[in-house]
Amino acid sequence: MQTEFEPRNPNYESVVRDSFSRQPYMADIGARIDLIEPGICELSLETRPGLTQQHGFFHGGLVAALADSAAGYACYSLYPPNSTVLTTEFKVSFLNPAQGGRLKAKGRVVKAGKTLFVCQADAYAEEAGKTSHCLTGLFTMMCLMGKSDALNLGREAVST
Amino acid sequence: MQTEFEPRNPNYESVVRDSFSRQPYMADIGARIDLIEPGICELSLETRPGLTQQHGFFHGGLVAALADSAAGYACYSLYPPNSTVLTTEFKVSFLNPAQGGRLKAKGRVVKAGKTLFVCQADAYAEEAGKTSHCLTGLFTMMCLMGKSDALNLGREAVST
Amino acid sequence: MQTEFEPRNPNYESVVRDSFSRQPYMADIGARIDLIEPGICELSLETRPGLTQQHGFFHGGLVAALADSAAGYACYSLYPPNSTVLTTEFKVSFLNPAQGGRLKAKGRVVKAGKTLFVCQADAYAEEAGKTSHCLTGLFTMMCLMGKSDALNLGREAVST
Amino acid sequence: MQTEFEPRNPNYESVVRDSFSRQPYMADIGARIDLIEPGICELSLETRPGLTQQHGFFHGGLVAALADSAAGYACYSLYPPNSTVLTTEFKVSFLNPAQGGRLKAKGRVVKAGKTLFVCQADAYAEEAGKTSHCLTGLFTMMCLMGKSDALNLGREAVST
Repeated sequence: MQTEFEPRNPNYESVVRDSFSRQPYMADIGARIDLIEPGICELSLETRPGLTQQHGFFHGGLVAALADSAAGYACYSLYPPNSTVLTTEFKVSFLNPAQGGRLKAKGRVVKAGKTLFVCQADAYAEEAGKTSHCLTGLFTMMCLMGKSDALNLGREAVST
Repeated sequence: MQTEFEPRNPNYESVVRDSFSRQPYMADIGARIDLIEPGICELSLETRPGLTQQHGFFHGGLVAALADSAAGYACYSLYPPNSTVLTTEFKVSFLNPAQGGRLKAKGRVVKAGKTLFVCQADAYAEEAGKTSHCLTGLFTMMCLMGKSDALNLGREAVST
Repeated sequence: MQTEFEPRNPNYESVVRDSFSRQPYMADIGARIDLIEPGICELSLETRPGLTQQHGFFHGGLVAALADSAAGYACYSLYPPNSTVLTTEFKVSFLNPAQGGRLKAKGRVVKAGKTLFVCQADAYAEEAGKTSHCLTGLFTMMCLMGKSDALNLGREAVST
Repeated sequence: MQTEFEPRNPNYESVVRDSFSRQPYMADIGARIDLIEPGICELSLETRPGLTQQHGFFHGGLVAALADSAAGYACYSLYPPNSTVLTTEFKVSFLNPAQGGRLKAKGRVVKAGKTLFVCQADAYAEEAGKTSHCLTGLFTMMCLMGKSDALNLGREAVST
């Protein structure tokens, strides 16, 4: 897929995959990366016991969490080397119940700024070959320069 | 705690606790109810492997998910009998890293309308006796009258 | 322009234009309708003294207000006869300074529900033949059935 | 009023008042400053023809615009000398119709970061001695260091 963005780090894909692999929460919910392109990230997961709310749909908070990660990595794919990514805020609108065996989230950078990146992300539930658009949202990500993406960063290091 | 709201269902507390107990995702992340009062709900969870992101903080999406549930049940405590609750949208701002062994979320209804409820929710991380305010957000909940809160509600039933 | 939505009111265009003409604030800022299609509305205005902030750009609140009206009328174009429209909430992200002589806002319905409509709107500033994308946002509109769109509706009538 | 914040500019009040006085849009809608304290700003305006929507209430976008300015100046009161303020995003929920002769907005800083400030703002309509809470919102403001708050800043200077 061709995108309008030029990555500042030629190794953007391995950088994103490495960071994703160090997110225990993404492993816990069974999320995997389906696509990484400059400014774009798609994630998905299969349903398992423990991901639903009282009506049997994927929990809205979980759907937002998957969309948040897709948005974050869409942005991170455009960051320069030696930086890390932080969500500063997001807003999500729920469009349809997230009913189905599979949940997908697609993040797409709308504006790549110097410090702040604005990203749109959408989530889709798939069941029996039918896809329903269950969430659309806007996310703001901060590019923290000169900060490690690894553990033990410390509270101060990620001050916004 | 005294609140300004009058519950329309005298059994609001058992109704909320019953609904919460049927949310597999809340059990999966280890969330429990700390407080239910009319228009107020407080939830918390202890850290466990699988709830963090790459820096070792609670994943932002998870923090938002806990706040979303606190907001939803704060609203649900004010609903009439024979109704269910649905998040229609929310917006969260991340204030500080969610670092610590314990995560709390407090939801408080701001406006109880006929169909739409607006709720504020905040999240706090606790570590070594120190509490940090990690998220503030606004949530809109819909009151679906005459709909069961139980499983197998069906996609159409929760149409907004 | 072909859209995916089927209007429920064959007179949707005159209904929208009539409502717009009764909005003193839209006249005050000099806004006009450029396009009405089912689920789509485009508005624009020319700069005049009194619409800018301290740096000389269109005031962000004004840009959001124009986008809000574009979103509202995009939704209203899909409402049945004998109904009115109310913004219940919106979120906007500012992408670039709104610098220029002309401001445009384009609203597009994302989800037409029974009661709630979710709309995306974007704003663009035009100067010397260059267009810059200055705002993107998500808006939730409520369809109030059986309520007049005219003056003196009364506070209770628009209870959400 | 005592607030929890320590201003970094002892002349914060005159700096805010000076910036406010250079906002043509604030003059155009008749807004004035009622209160400036560190981290707090209250604005108000009286109704006049041209500020309402089709039902005769203050236009929601105008209410949001006043809240945005209150939020921005609440933040700006905490900024160091030689800086300017920019709204990066906001989300507002409408609680009640903004009906009445007077509109007030109160902004209060929730988190003062290094670059990003999170602010809550609320708007109230007053009529015949009755006040109704018409809007609550969350705003993110950016502190642009070393940038003039005056005109002709240039598009590049305010890049986020």
